[in-house]
Amino acid sequence: MGNPSKHRGVNPCILVQPVEASADVAVADRLQVVDAAAPQVSVLDLGVTRGDGIFEVFGVINGHVQAVVPELDLEAIREAVVRVAGMAEQVPEFSVKVVVTRGVEGAGAATCWVIAFRSSDDFAAERITGVRAVLLDRGYPHDIASRAPWLLAGAKTLSYAVNKAALREAARRGADDAIFTSSDGYVLEGPSANLVARFGNRILTPAPAQGILRGTAQGAAFEYFAEAGYAVGEVLLRVEQLAEADALWLTSSGRMLVPVRELDGRPVPVDRELTDAANAALLARTE
Amino acid sequence: MGNPSKHRGVNPCILVQPVEASADVAVADRLQVVDAAAPQVSVLDLGVTRGDGIFEVFGVINGHVQAVVPELDLEAIREAVVRVAGMAEQVPEFSVKVVVTRGVEGAGAATCWVIAFRSSDDFAAERITGVRAVLLDRGYPHDIASRAPWLLAGAKTLSYAVNKAALREAARRGADDAIFTSSDGYVLEGPSANLVARFGNRILTPAPAQGILRGTAQGAAFEYFAEAGYAVGEVLLRVEQLAEADALWLTSSGRMLVPVRELDGRPVPVDRELTDAANAALLARTE
Repeated sequence: MGNPSKHRGVNPCILVQPVEASADVAVADRLQVVDAAAPQVSVLDLGVTRGDGIFEVFGVINGHVQAVVPELDLEAIREAVVRVAGMAEQVPEFSVKVVVTRGVEGAGAATCWVIAFRSSDDFAAERITGVRAVLLDRGYPHDIASRAPWLLAGAKTLSYAVNKAALREAARRGADDAIFTSSDGYVLEGPSANLVARFGNRILTPAPAQGILRGTAQGAAFEYFAEAGYAVGEVLLRVEQLAEADALWLTSSGRMLVPVRELDGRPVPVDRELTDAANAALLARTE
Repeated sequence: MGNPSKHRGVNPCILVQPVEASADVAVADRLQVVDAAAPQVSVLDLGVTRGDGIFEVFGVINGHVQAVVPELDLEAIREAVVRVAGMAEQVPEFSVKVVVTRGVEGAGAATCWVIAFRSSDDFAAERITGVRAVLLDRGYPHDIASRAPWLLAGAKTLSYAVNKAALREAARRGADDAIFTSSDGYVLEGPSANLVARFGNRILTPAPAQGILRGTAQGAAFEYFAEAGYAVGEVLLRVEQLAEADALWLTSSGRMLVPVRELDGRPVPVDRELTDAANAALLARTE
């Protein structure tokens, strides 16, 4: 294993070696600290050739890894996440990303790595200033995930080219981010964020059954809102309802709650007090 | 540059180094022969992190690289394709793939490699035996590419997770391949092939404007069919029309023309004579 200290400030990265079925290898011996900037992945890897893999991102706030979800309890990945978080430069906020690909075609072993990074977006500033968003058609009806599971709606795969193209389209329109809508008029999610909307005392997010990635930050925000006395819910949300919202936020493990201050060029009310209170609560979490 | 001979029989691979704007580097000095099985790509590369890149595949039949399309006339890539084709074990049929990713985020230089490979499918056998296919909803209406260009319908990106999932769904249904349909009832294409249908003296393929990847093998096949006296055309093709077809084929640079002998469990007529004649003509091409 390399010297972790030399990776500080760049992108600390650990390769998680696949465990042989027959071998009894200690977890620590399966974690290999590597240089993220150096070549680490084969051009034959299905993550590279086909975007065929999955990922998850965890926020690290003041040294605490947020929401390592119970579903992802593989011992080695958990240890790699904690170790990478500890190796990173201890800035107030950064993220750790876990990537698992199907590995080299035919080889039968997944490729997995865990890497720390700082977002190119200044989320701390965006929580204050908010962002401008545009609505973009995702092309699918809202019930596509149940009708056509092979379209992987709701799966967090490495095939993110559409999400990147949507962000370029948003920039082309003078906005900071995009919010996808279904072909039949429902609000879905952002390319890398969930949408949360307040209507009076109700705080709502589009139901995950519509092929939406369930976000850990959205979940944590809803716990906070519920404790604060709001009625929270996952719903079908029509595009036209957004005009009546008292506040809109984009949520993700890096953002926490970022207010949408403008949608398709029209101003959206920003709930300064609730935004700040909720973000303070989320940023204060220690697990 | 390494010794090309040692890469024979595996996957000969060349990295195409980005040319510095200011430097006058000879093409040959920008081509680096590498071991495809060894790590070559950074985990920070957008091709890896977001499936954000494009690719093209060229068939190599009896030593001749097929259809290096004029649009892709970058000198270095062309030379790399020819060189990789020459380095590969000279089996009768293999393919060369060009991959271009957006490179490491923020670095501003594309990552590019060219690699030879043999398909895991036995296309030579499939041209004789044909394949069983199933129709799968692609979820989008047929006019999505013009309505929502950010969905990248028709772009050959590395984000192929849906295509891989569709093949798994086809296998689950006891079939060999899939044919995507639009949400409004039009026939589109396969996950890695174009669909071609014969109706009497007319041979048709779904029009590329529907977000379909235009295939070089389909184009070459249509040249052959036109010379053989068939009326060829790119059309809107309704799903229900497939039941009236006198022959269906899947075409790609590896397959040439593979007959579909069964669709959703129902037999499809195989035009043995035309299939064999067209494949013989396509396989005899020397450029």
